[in-house]
Amino acid sequence: MSFHPSSSTARDGDLAQLVGLRHKHFIINLQAGTKLETHRGILLHDELIGKPWGTQVFSHTGAPFFLLQPSLADLLSNITRTTQILYPKDIGFILVSMGVGPGQKVMEAGTGSGSMTTALAYAVGDEGRVVSYEVKPDVQNLALKNLTRYGLASRVDLKLRDIQEGFDETDADSFFLDVPNPWDFVQNVRAALKPGGFLCCLIPTINQVEKTLYALRYNKYAFIDVCEILLRHYKPEPARIRPVDRMVAHTGYLVFARRIEPNEDPRGKALSEEIGVTNEVEAT
Amino acid sequence: MSFHPSSSTARDGDLAQLVGLRHKHFIINLQAGTKLETHRGILLHDELIGKPWGTQVFSHTGAPFFLLQPSLADLLSNITRTTQILYPKDIGFILVSMGVGPGQKVMEAGTGSGSMTTALAYAVGDEGRVVSYEVKPDVQNLALKNLTRYGLASRVDLKLRDIQEGFDETDADSFFLDVPNPWDFVQNVRAALKPGGFLCCLIPTINQVEKTLYALRYNKYAFIDVCEILLRHYKPEPARIRPVDRMVAHTGYLVFARRIEPNEDPRGKALSEEIGVTNEVEAT
Amino acid sequence: MSFHPSSSTARDGDLAQLVGLRHKHFIINLQAGTKLETHRGILLHDELIGKPWGTQVFSHTGAPFFLLQPSLADLLSNITRTTQILYPKDIGFILVSMGVGPGQKVMEAGTGSGSMTTALAYAVGDEGRVVSYEVKPDVQNLALKNLTRYGLASRVDLKLRDIQEGFDETDADSFFLDVPNPWDFVQNVRAALKPGGFLCCLIPTINQVEKTLYALRYNKYAFIDVCEILLRHYKPEPARIRPVDRMVAHTGYLVFARRIEPNEDPRGKALSEEIGVTNEVEAT
Amino acid sequence: MSFHPSSSTARDGDLAQLVGLRHKHFIINLQAGTKLETHRGILLHDELIGKPWGTQVFSHTGAPFFLLQPSLADLLSNITRTTQILYPKDIGFILVSMGVGPGQKVMEAGTGSGSMTTALAYAVGDEGRVVSYEVKPDVQNLALKNLTRYGLASRVDLKLRDIQEGFDETDADSFFLDVPNPWDFVQNVRAALKPGGFLCCLIPTINQVEKTLYALRYNKYAFIDVCEILLRHYKPEPARIRPVDRMVAHTGYLVFARRIEPNEDPRGKALSEEIGVTNEVEAT
Repeated sequence: MSFHPSSSTARDGDLAQLVGLRHKHFIINLQAGTKLETHRGILLHDELIGKPWGTQVFSHTGAPFFLLQPSLADLLSNITRTTQILYPKDIGFILVSMGVGPGQKVMEAGTGSGSMTTALAYAVGDEGRVVSYEVKPDVQNLALKNLTRYGLASRVDLKLRDIQEGFDETDADSFFLDVPNPWDFVQNVRAALKPGGFLCCLIPTINQVEKTLYALRYNKYAFIDVCEILLRHYKPEPARIRPVDRMVAHTGYLVFARRIEPNEDPRGKALSEEIGVTNEVEAT
Repeated sequence: MSFHPSSSTARDGDLAQLVGLRHKHFIINLQAGTKLETHRGILLHDELIGKPWGTQVFSHTGAPFFLLQPSLADLLSNITRTTQILYPKDIGFILVSMGVGPGQKVMEAGTGSGSMTTALAYAVGDEGRVVSYEVKPDVQNLALKNLTRYGLASRVDLKLRDIQEGFDETDADSFFLDVPNPWDFVQNVRAALKPGGFLCCLIPTINQVEKTLYALRYNKYAFIDVCEILLRHYKPEPARIRPVDRMVAHTGYLVFARRIEPNEDPRGKALSEEIGVTNEVEAT
Repeated sequence: MSFHPSSSTARDGDLAQLVGLRHKHFIINLQAGTKLETHRGILLHDELIGKPWGTQVFSHTGAPFFLLQPSLADLLSNITRTTQILYPKDIGFILVSMGVGPGQKVMEAGTGSGSMTTALAYAVGDEGRVVSYEVKPDVQNLALKNLTRYGLASRVDLKLRDIQEGFDETDADSFFLDVPNPWDFVQNVRAALKPGGFLCCLIPTINQVEKTLYALRYNKYAFIDVCEILLRHYKPEPARIRPVDRMVAHTGYLVFARRIEPNEDPRGKALSEEIGVTNEVEAT
Repeated sequence: MSFHPSSSTARDGDLAQLVGLRHKHFIINLQAGTKLETHRGILLHDELIGKPWGTQVFSHTGAPFFLLQPSLADLLSNITRTTQILYPKDIGFILVSMGVGPGQKVMEAGTGSGSMTTALAYAVGDEGRVVSYEVKPDVQNLALKNLTRYGLASRVDLKLRDIQEGFDETDADSFFLDVPNPWDFVQNVRAALKPGGFLCCLIPTINQVEKTLYALRYNKYAFIDVCEILLRHYKPEPARIRPVDRMVAHTGYLVFARRIEPNEDPRGKALSEEIGVTNEVEAT
């Protein structure tokens, strides 16, 4: 099965999302001859294949479902996970900020349950490549299951390793580093990135941001940016528009940086300082 | 010239970003035999081609620049525009929420200066297709210039038309509608979307959101979501971490919806109501 | 009993807050000879009176409590309520923006459970006066109980009336209007305010804000300000500082305005327009 | 002159705010026989005294002004300052959270230009007392001028001292500590607070918050809360409601704590831990 997103009817091999009552969601690979068993009855794939997207279908007990193509956000929210969720608000901004797109070679550590791996694989397309490192075999295995279910596994190399030992790759376009101690690895990440390549870290606490910033400076990264993104939903009632009562207050701080080649030429000193490459390093 | 993002050195035909002092940015197509004239001197493309990304280069007067590959966010911030800016925080979330990715067929109206057109073309890749409508010839022409400069024009059909007259296309995977009066067009957009397809509107005022919500209900869209995204930058000084003093407080409200096929089957009534498809329409 | 906030030990007649395990809070009037019965045992007021604030005390079963003086925020969070909560973040900003302070005459409608009544009575002191209107007898009665328990009832006139009929008072320094349809009452409120007096409305939906803004313009209010306040808490762990996971996303929009006397003098026309007093009124 | 906020016409001795074109504001003490000279002409106090608040008045050159009573927020925004501004959004929340009200004895360090001093003096009334420490004579002098101009000086003791040397007072109801290094002084503040008394620090960077949290724990404060407040203004146009384009992204982190008396009684151990009083202190 491969990932071919565009069609107006459900085809054998397509990813499909079934949305039932009370927001119960299922994402499946449509495969002729198989079936989906839910607590509201059974749906035969053969009866789904050929139906237009966006229509209602019914289980053998008559329970209704909408048959839809999942968006990337839907894939992300249906990932089977043991680790913390990654949110579309953050993922979207990361992809745009690092310019992740078709044909690129991008890297990641750790793989975790495969949320960002899914997003990266979705974005780079069949011409691109994702290499993702993870140290725990069972976690990697879960990511593999998620990627396989989504038809994205063929775009990804999952590697099992303690990244203290470094990376096999060089010249990556960008690197997403999602570990508790990014400061220990930004030197190795630098070696894996191509010159000018992008690094992004997603970091829960400010104390970790502080340590990461020192390490980025020490390792001659530049264009460092720290930010956070807040998403607020509104009740979509046209006569009573207002934000919902509660929202997610924090997912993580985003730290972006680029690998820059330092320069000894005295003519470039002011520019290097302006973009944050220093030869002196503050004591931690 | 085509868009091939991955390389470790600057090649003839690549997009390149030159970053000089005081955050002065230039994005250019590298073309052997041509030159970039800046107020800090001239740079010959022939001297840039072959250099590793991320290194410093110098103009004929000795002014320093960093030679970088632009990210999508860099492309967006360098667009020549007459219309309002579209922000990476919003664009990233839109792409992920609508699942815009390689190989898709996506639509847009109006084209404007081509910010979202650029993002859509970047994301769908060479296998995908963007169709974008605009009513003003000079605005369309500016978008064409931006897309051409970025090597993305071959992925885009720019159409000049008042969209009151409808669209030529059907079965679009998703549609980005960025006009002052989206409520007047959601019926035509519905005809252009494939069943289950995604609509996103970016809307400045709440009054416009209200009218759009009524029109979406009336036209049998479902899974309606209204939200806004806030981005806060921090000063990246490890010893003095704090948010910057001021931030953008508002870019626009995002309204998402999906084209759903209504169903007369009484078994599906409760589900249709739950996801927001109604047969009754509130008076406006 | 009257409200005398300052003392270093608990006195007969003081308000006291007892904080037990699992954040269980009680606010009581200390009265010699009485007792507090909790699900963790009984506390005799006689044993609390004379103890320094900030110390631990124990029930007859040995359950520990901290004996504290409640802040205004503590009073607000312990109000017995049937209506929606008012938050310190909003109340504090309202008090400062309208300049509510000792000795003032302030008004309110509706009383509700008495949250804002409590805040206003607290702020105006023994020299000030709060007049609060409510249409439902049982709601007013609940507010009276809350105010009495807090020793603040003597500063407040609670009036039972449908405010469509207008107010008895004139020359109020400020007016807090917390009703679902403020636009129906801003004319009556104008008559109750002194010239230059402040109005504040707390409004849940944007649709209500819209109607209120039209009514304020029509009734010659000026210095109109619409805003909202977001409060984000952090985990107070010095080694792992980060915002808490979730936060309140919306309590209400705050709309401020001042009663201004319009002027026919042509020399003042530009100034009147600048501060928002118009002679034309947009059609609703 | 003393501070008597309530009147419907301007009286000799009242504070008055004059608002002219382009939001030009003046706050003055009305004093018979004196005059206000502005760049738009002269206003005689004798012609202002007796006028109703909220009316337009004119300078000798015919320039219009509105005659208003200033709110506390108006006083704060008109303070002559050399130090950073304190915002009503923060001040209001601080007053409510610490329960600052009429008759209280509150303390502050450093005085700075007198913004918080003004707010505290306003809130405690004639029966209350503010004691404020400052180390720089010229800064203290500026605060004195501001307080005098606002008629609030009689409620305040301004003391000139390096607070390393400690405070003269004990049994303060609450303490506002606004210095770059609060961790150096929380022990001295503890001695100045009454048992159960409130401390609030306003802190620009997270690094300072971290150090302060360690110091608060070490000095047996409890009920520690860290938060930040965001204020977003909207354009008050009823037909085009939307947030303003830009907002203040950061003023400071608020850290609240209460002085608690630790207890050796083993029955209270769990409660002490729950509210954050520990006998062990994490290494800094």
